[in-house]
Amino acid sequence: MKTYLDCIPCFAQQALDAARMATEDQEERLHIMRRVMRKASSFPDDAPPPAMGAAIHRIIREVTDDPDPYREIKRRANEFALELLPDARDTATGADKPFETALRLAIAGNIMDWGAKPHADISEDAVERTLHEALDAPIRGDQPEELKRSIQGADDVLYLADNAGEIVFDRLLISLLPCPHVTVAVKGSPTINDATMEDARQVDLVNRAEVVETGSDTPGVLLDQCSELFRELFEGADIVIAKGQGNYEALSDVDRHVVFLLKAKCPVIAGDIGCEVGNMLLLDGGRTLAATDAEVKENAPI
Amino acid sequence: MKTYLDCIPCFAQQALDAARMATEDQEERLHIMRRVMRKASSFPDDAPPPAMGAAIHRIIREVTDDPDPYREIKRRANEFALELLPDARDTATGADKPFETALRLAIAGNIMDWGAKPHADISEDAVERTLHEALDAPIRGDQPEELKRSIQGADDVLYLADNAGEIVFDRLLISLLPCPHVTVAVKGSPTINDATMEDARQVDLVNRAEVVETGSDTPGVLLDQCSELFRELFEGADIVIAKGQGNYEALSDVDRHVVFLLKAKCPVIAGDIGCEVGNMLLLDGGRTLAATDAEVKENAPI
Repeated sequence: MKTYLDCIPCFAQQALDAARMATEDQEERLHIMRRVMRKASSFPDDAPPPAMGAAIHRIIREVTDDPDPYREIKRRANEFALELLPDARDTATGADKPFETALRLAIAGNIMDWGAKPHADISEDAVERTLHEALDAPIRGDQPEELKRSIQGADDVLYLADNAGEIVFDRLLISLLPCPHVTVAVKGSPTINDATMEDARQVDLVNRAEVVETGSDTPGVLLDQCSELFRELFEGADIVIAKGQGNYEALSDVDRHVVFLLKAKCPVIAGDIGCEVGNMLLLDGGRTLAATDAEVKENAPI
Repeated sequence: MKTYLDCIPCFAQQALDAARMATEDQEERLHIMRRVMRKASSFPDDAPPPAMGAAIHRIIREVTDDPDPYREIKRRANEFALELLPDARDTATGADKPFETALRLAIAGNIMDWGAKPHADISEDAVERTLHEALDAPIRGDQPEELKRSIQGADDVLYLADNAGEIVFDRLLISLLPCPHVTVAVKGSPTINDATMEDARQVDLVNRAEVVETGSDTPGVLLDQCSELFRELFEGADIVIAKGQGNYEALSDVDRHVVFLLKAKCPVIAGDIGCEVGNMLLLDGGRTLAATDAEVKENAPI
């Protein structure tokens, strides 16, 4: 997905929310905002939004001299999701359709996204409510049973993880993927609350799947910034499943088939896909649904 | 009022709303946004918000090569307000307290502000509703009767107008100011929908008061950008009445007594004043009310 004009004020707001989370120092916050504005002024008009997201959070880590400002948030998100896991597992394995139920919970887990929303807006109550609602809410796009059949015919799946906490529900879904070999990719180094190898260890994903790093810190996999090794995996996998908005933004236009699992969390992405904000999505390929958001449609990408 | 960190994303959103209003050309809109971001990256940290507002709208006028993108909006706002004037005049002159009623209507007229809100959000219905509600809504700060007494003791009043349309209700209030000599200042050249001499002529203010220009295009009177003549008037007037958010932002910290009449239209200014968004305000001097907005209070100005 290309960057829309509407993304620009949102970059500024996200930078401010993140700067406030990362430092109490007003001078540092101002310095962050100045550098983000300068970066935004020369942002390439054909780049997807995660390129700017990556730049914002690199600036924040540099100015605050903190390599991982979201470390504690991630740790607590993993811990909280692990507390919910036994119930989630029982719900999935006891359901008529365990694969679909686990997939619903994995999509719902995508609410644990500190890039799209400031910290205060994601309460543990909201996570529990979202998981609960996900069991019955419609899935827009394609249907889980079709995806299950595709996976049954595949030799290997590459699963692109998104956020800490969320990866606990990914772990549950991965355990039910009907495929002999699943590789999970986490970020190569910290960015926002995206899952890294440290998170994969904390939630014990490393003992349940092969976990690799993208080789990059971009929130959303931007292939040109990933390692050669990761790009080979990406190109060679029978099926690539990509979690979250950032991965949709980064990969919806690339030249290979990708299955996207996400919650639409902003009007721009909802407009790009043709769904409503809050929808759960399974997009088997980056195609667009029927347009529903005239406001965003009118606004072509920059 | 100094610029707050929260103003930065708002500058970006205001620039985007205004760019969309001013041109259909996506390339021009992107060019505007790039230049606004560059300007924001070096915005002086001790300048009030209208300095950035002025810069944004200078960029828009330059890029679109249109000296007055809001001309038609202003013309229609004046026309619409003139349609409402006979009823407003009857309401004021027939009231128990004509001065207070006219003052309420003049504050309510401050809703006609295309800087604070995009065009689509200010309907003629909303203006009529705001005028109606203003008759009974509480006035925060000081009371009209005290201001009336101050004016009765003054030789001259300088009245800083804010927006087109709104100046029709200013005209009504000015006709009821108990003072022998009232001078009204309009902007020296177009910026957003701020009233200029052209608007003062359209609403026939020029035949009812002495109308002068500030000598500047800043939305909110920034004295260092005004003419020498205007600055002398500002310093010499017995009473200065300043309409609107922009003038509060520009003048709340200057070294002379100013009476501010405005509606608080954003959480930052409401936090700075210590009131709620939507409040009608009469501030006889730039003092701050009791703080009510912890979020903004926590966020010191940049």
